[in-house]
Amino acid sequence: MRIEDLRTPAALVDANVLERNAAAMAERARRLGVRLRPHVKTHKTLEAARLQVRGHFGGIAVSTLAEAAFFGAGGFRDITYAVPIGPSKLGEALQLTARLDRLNLLVDHPEAAAAVEAASRDQGLRPSVLLKVDCGAHRAGVDPSREESIAFAARLAASKNLDFRGILTHAGQAYRCRTADEIRTVAAHERDVMTAFAAHLAAAGVTIDEVSIGSTPTLAVAEDLKGITEVRPGNYVFFDACQVAIGSCTLDDVAFSVLVRVIGRYPERSELLVDGGALALSKDPGPTHVDPAFGFGVVLTAAGERLPGLRVVSLSQEHGLLRSATPLAQGAFRIGSLLRIVPNHSCLAAALFDRYAVIRSGQVFDEWRPVRGW
Amino acid sequence: MRIEDLRTPAALVDANVLERNAAAMAERARRLGVRLRPHVKTHKTLEAARLQVRGHFGGIAVSTLAEAAFFGAGGFRDITYAVPIGPSKLGEALQLTARLDRLNLLVDHPEAAAAVEAASRDQGLRPSVLLKVDCGAHRAGVDPSREESIAFAARLAASKNLDFRGILTHAGQAYRCRTADEIRTVAAHERDVMTAFAAHLAAAGVTIDEVSIGSTPTLAVAEDLKGITEVRPGNYVFFDACQVAIGSCTLDDVAFSVLVRVIGRYPERSELLVDGGALALSKDPGPTHVDPAFGFGVVLTAAGERLPGLRVVSLSQEHGLLRSATPLAQGAFRIGSLLRIVPNHSCLAAALFDRYAVIRSGQVFDEWRPVRGW
Repeated sequence: MRIEDLRTPAALVDANVLERNAAAMAERARRLGVRLRPHVKTHKTLEAARLQVRGHFGGIAVSTLAEAAFFGAGGFRDITYAVPIGPSKLGEALQLTARLDRLNLLVDHPEAAAAVEAASRDQGLRPSVLLKVDCGAHRAGVDPSREESIAFAARLAASKNLDFRGILTHAGQAYRCRTADEIRTVAAHERDVMTAFAAHLAAAGVTIDEVSIGSTPTLAVAEDLKGITEVRPGNYVFFDACQVAIGSCTLDDVAFSVLVRVIGRYPERSELLVDGGALALSKDPGPTHVDPAFGFGVVLTAAGERLPGLRVVSLSQEHGLLRSATPLAQGAFRIGSLLRIVPNHSCLAAALFDRYAVIRSGQVFDEWRPVRGW
Repeated sequence: MRIEDLRTPAALVDANVLERNAAAMAERARRLGVRLRPHVKTHKTLEAARLQVRGHFGGIAVSTLAEAAFFGAGGFRDITYAVPIGPSKLGEALQLTARLDRLNLLVDHPEAAAAVEAASRDQGLRPSVLLKVDCGAHRAGVDPSREESIAFAARLAASKNLDFRGILTHAGQAYRCRTADEIRTVAAHERDVMTAFAAHLAAAGVTIDEVSIGSTPTLAVAEDLKGITEVRPGNYVFFDACQVAIGSCTLDDVAFSVLVRVIGRYPERSELLVDGGALALSKDPGPTHVDPAFGFGVVLTAAGERLPGLRVVSLSQEHGLLRSATPLAQGAFRIGSLLRIVPNHSCLAAALFDRYAVIRSGQVFDEWRPVRGW
């Protein structure tokens, strides 16, 4: 099948680029001496996850229990549910542990830990638990500079009903960087916060097996990960317009795009309407800290060539409005023309699709089905 | 089932509020002397659409051909596909016309009209066509002030292969208003542009049956729709935080919310983490033109009471971060607590769910399944 035969909007995955990204990160992790546990929330497909774990131990990170169940059924045996576990999800999570070699649960609050302990005791289980640490993103995680965080870790380690594995962080603040140099600073901080916290734990008599970090931007620049045991980047397998803007990759490294068609043409305002809107690209505002007028993605030809004159200026539910910096040439971008848009945030855009058209050299050769929901 | 038993994040539809919204708009349209053709893209369910068309002729508007097929199979016989039709979608659209009393197609460009004509001629069909008019939103539509727009309408009317029904617009700029007074100005403009264009067409010998307008904000304030035949509001059946902010409704009128649970609690920064992120609420930035610090929705208790001190300050894929204006009281918002969030844009948030939990007085009594995809 040719991409010209696809119904639009369609999610395109370039298999050659994806394989290259997967292999490069696997090699990077090997060179850095850490295990790679890719976060598969970016694509949510068995096919891409299998490519990502090649040459590594096979562990993955997921963002929902629906993903944990899906990937577990698909043969993945070591899964980190990388969102703090809530009491209401414990029943299902503990059921899953029985079907996996390991399901790592995240806690960052004593109330959550107490709930995990109580449920585990009731069921005679001893689930793997990681302490989530805040290394500056200020989203989830304990503050590693507080004495009570050490005490919390010690209590987890002492629990008969928990298999306390170690500590985990995500330097989400890297997404707000403007340059690779800024990301280098965040990456060093992410590593140093975690190795220092591990040292404090050791000094307090708490030994851990796992010191897990990871984000695509910080991994892209990391040069020394001494003291770190595993990394959990996810976005790198697709990349996106944000990652290009902050310097994690180039546009040629982006494996995911949304195929759209021109359905309106307004030369008097140098604008085009395409049939991909907020439900195909997501309303992620993109790297507005790098360029306030960035728009909702990067516009390419159907063959993947950059069209720098076109900007996605607005999205409504099923309409995308593109504006040209120069007058629309007669005969260019006619009604029905195909374009590709690299979304600002591929994780959010990909999750809007029930299937991805997988292409090589412009030909569709496969269809991948992501898991959805929670 | 109680809402406490729902897996989170969950989409909640309050049936009492939805029925009241549907009945109020139906009555409003009757009083204004126009037919109501609700846009069902907001919820994409048969159940809500059936409530919306009560007391009217049964026509609906949709945003995708998947919706057209779904609602056609569900008994809806008069459907407007309210996005300009592209050539690649014609085959499927024309197939659908055979199974409906009427499928109205939108055109706003001669190339699209020529494609519809050619395909209709080939198949011996004569589909209903509406000319999309731009009344100031500058998204889709012909400019009604241009002579060539009159000539285009005349060509559509003269075509043997098209059943040219009339003109249609959507005053999308109403969403950018700050007050009901500003919306009144937009509403009057929407009506006046269309009735003036209809008069110009009549003067040019082009008679039309349909003058269709509609958006939830402009309908909320319309007082005189003389010259208009039908209205196509959609969002009103759910409403959302944006509509509250621009004055289309009050918070009590909002029928859609997302149920979440607290999974992280950080008193040192007065923040809570909940298990609804960008894939449950969408990244719609909301009414930032009314309040730049609005955040990603309005936070309610599980029972639906406003919690004005809490703001949704950021969303990542599966994490929502809430910040309290005052220190978190001890014992308040414990891990596992239920909250509801009214999303900024209910159409985009609802489309992220495979099912809605339908509630009355806090009890779940039904589950509705929206159609998805394209």
